[in-house]
Amino acid sequence: MLTPMRWTQEGLYLLDQRLLPRHEQWNLCETPEEAAEAIRDMVVRGAPALGLTAAYGMALAARQLANEEACHSENSDSHRDRDPLDRHSYMDRIFEAATMLTDSRPTAVNLSWAVKQQLEVAAQTVGTGGGVGDLYGALIDKAQKMHEEDILTNRSIGRHGAALLRDGDRILTHCNAGALATGGYGTALGVIRFAHDAGMNVQAYATETRPYLQGARLTAWELTRDGIPVTLIVDGAAGMLMQRGDIDAVVVGADRVAANGDTANKIGTYQLALAARENSVPFYVAAPTSTLDLDTPYGSGVEVEKRDPAEITQFMGEQTAPDMVRAVNFAFDITPAELITGVITENGLAEAPLLESLERMIRVNKPHGGDSGA
Amino acid sequence: MLTPMRWTQEGLYLLDQRLLPRHEQWNLCETPEEAAEAIRDMVVRGAPALGLTAAYGMALAARQLANEEACHSENSDSHRDRDPLDRHSYMDRIFEAATMLTDSRPTAVNLSWAVKQQLEVAAQTVGTGGGVGDLYGALIDKAQKMHEEDILTNRSIGRHGAALLRDGDRILTHCNAGALATGGYGTALGVIRFAHDAGMNVQAYATETRPYLQGARLTAWELTRDGIPVTLIVDGAAGMLMQRGDIDAVVVGADRVAANGDTANKIGTYQLALAARENSVPFYVAAPTSTLDLDTPYGSGVEVEKRDPAEITQFMGEQTAPDMVRAVNFAFDITPAELITGVITENGLAEAPLLESLERMIRVNKPHGGDSGA
Repeated sequence: MLTPMRWTQEGLYLLDQRLLPRHEQWNLCETPEEAAEAIRDMVVRGAPALGLTAAYGMALAARQLANEEACHSENSDSHRDRDPLDRHSYMDRIFEAATMLTDSRPTAVNLSWAVKQQLEVAAQTVGTGGGVGDLYGALIDKAQKMHEEDILTNRSIGRHGAALLRDGDRILTHCNAGALATGGYGTALGVIRFAHDAGMNVQAYATETRPYLQGARLTAWELTRDGIPVTLIVDGAAGMLMQRGDIDAVVVGADRVAANGDTANKIGTYQLALAARENSVPFYVAAPTSTLDLDTPYGSGVEVEKRDPAEITQFMGEQTAPDMVRAVNFAFDITPAELITGVITENGLAEAPLLESLERMIRVNKPHGGDSGA
Repeated sequence: MLTPMRWTQEGLYLLDQRLLPRHEQWNLCETPEEAAEAIRDMVVRGAPALGLTAAYGMALAARQLANEEACHSENSDSHRDRDPLDRHSYMDRIFEAATMLTDSRPTAVNLSWAVKQQLEVAAQTVGTGGGVGDLYGALIDKAQKMHEEDILTNRSIGRHGAALLRDGDRILTHCNAGALATGGYGTALGVIRFAHDAGMNVQAYATETRPYLQGARLTAWELTRDGIPVTLIVDGAAGMLMQRGDIDAVVVGADRVAANGDTANKIGTYQLALAARENSVPFYVAAPTSTLDLDTPYGSGVEVEKRDPAEITQFMGEQTAPDMVRAVNFAFDITPAELITGVITENGLAEAPLLESLERMIRVNKPHGGDSGA
């Protein structure tokens, strides 16, 4: 199973997605700082994968504390008499890591969702007298459980989404909401993958997704790897294909879905949704309930990240635009709820009006243990 | 004045637009074959510039005949007794060049528009007893006249278009419909240029325009060169900027406008038009009447060129998508007339219903000599 991250004794290995499809290089993160840097620099991307990286990053923070204590205990034999202040300072360090990881990128809500869960685990462990070793153990257990659950979640999204497709469907997707964007299997690509694995004759159309070319570099790569037919187009060609009747459904991922259903996703998604409505093509968002942010009532409340203009003015280090030209590089846009046919979650399809149906998707989940990604 | 082509005694020099903005290299075309190749390979692009290149290409065909005759006459002193068959064979060669140039790219109607005019000039010259020298003289005169008229046409488009703008306007444009796409001055960029030159405080937003990056490489280059403020965005960001209220008008060029107003233009234009309508942003097409094709009733009748998929899967010779991935590369799309606020021609603004107003724009022009590009 393709996954963009692997936990080992050494730490968290992340597949460097900036180098795909030309090189498969795994970068080791040994500290929460390195995990945050990997998120900021887009070694890893995709809302669910960012959440998991942050969850592992929290475990790395605890491991750092455990290592420090181990060093300290070699120089002192009073380490058994840990006083409450120590625990406070542990938690201060854990909170610092939490803030750093949450702030590493602003738009994907999964970062704060994952960090919040790890903070609960930390508070419980420390509150019941656990030491840093226990803290590390609890946080790494939780991160690994979240990783496993994410894959199960994506399979459920895939199953619910595939039920909406018909044999022969041509499905347009944007950016990469695949195995590489999650713990594995993918959300939007999970839908296509599930349908394909179930023997349906489906094929994908992938927008190349400027400026980072996640569609060309990642989606095309992971689908061809799995033998799923995929056709690459430029972002501007999606509308024309829909107009020609070449697309049967659009399925995209999400970085954050507001309570009313407004969806933050990769820049360009909004234009695809407009073209889909114009041409009566159903437009689905595939996202785990961990990407639903009921605390944000509307899309206008979502902070949209602005990234380095050089991502547009340069390509592979080569200047493509004239020197000194101004560029604005919003990483995401907001697709209004009224353009969305439905949100495919692990608990089923939320249909319009999304304000009610999305809340139901989260409530469905609560009895199973409170982990909204479960 | 920036122009993408220059006629000299040696032949037609074309600015190699594939190398901009990094290199300014002029390629010499000495034969109609070389002119057609330059069109196919996108050394020159933009509907009006393609038309002019074809017009010069016709003159190159006549020059070729004149040179051949000169060689022949050195070996024979009977060249004064040219028989009618000779004239037939001249015209056969001229027709061959006409077909080759017209077919060099399928979508821009300006190619056949320009070639047709040159064929009329050729028929008249040969019909009134002119030799190949006269033919060459007549065709090069006509090409140069068309070139001059194109620049005047663009200034008129600029003047009519600027009248639609207000001080402070932020104008989104797509691809390059500038000096580089015409004989000089530009159509869509002519509108922005005219407003700027008239002292209006206007600024441009340029989509980078994948796959060929005409926006990043050409529009950004020629506007910064003229001191006109320009901001570069990825194609997918246009909708979001309109949603934010950052765009006051969209002005694009055209490769062919059908009789009902449906407009073929660079791939991605249709999505911009949908976003403009959704956000109540006026959407203008700036095009000379030579781009109006009243013989094609609807956009569905326009042949849309499919280009090499490698334009999408490679970048500057580097593979960006996985090997063997399928890609489709339509160069243009069709924007339905109902999404177009108006077509800005050299004879004024054609407003909805375009079917009537476009025809009026061409009729207006007729009394001035029959050159619809005049």
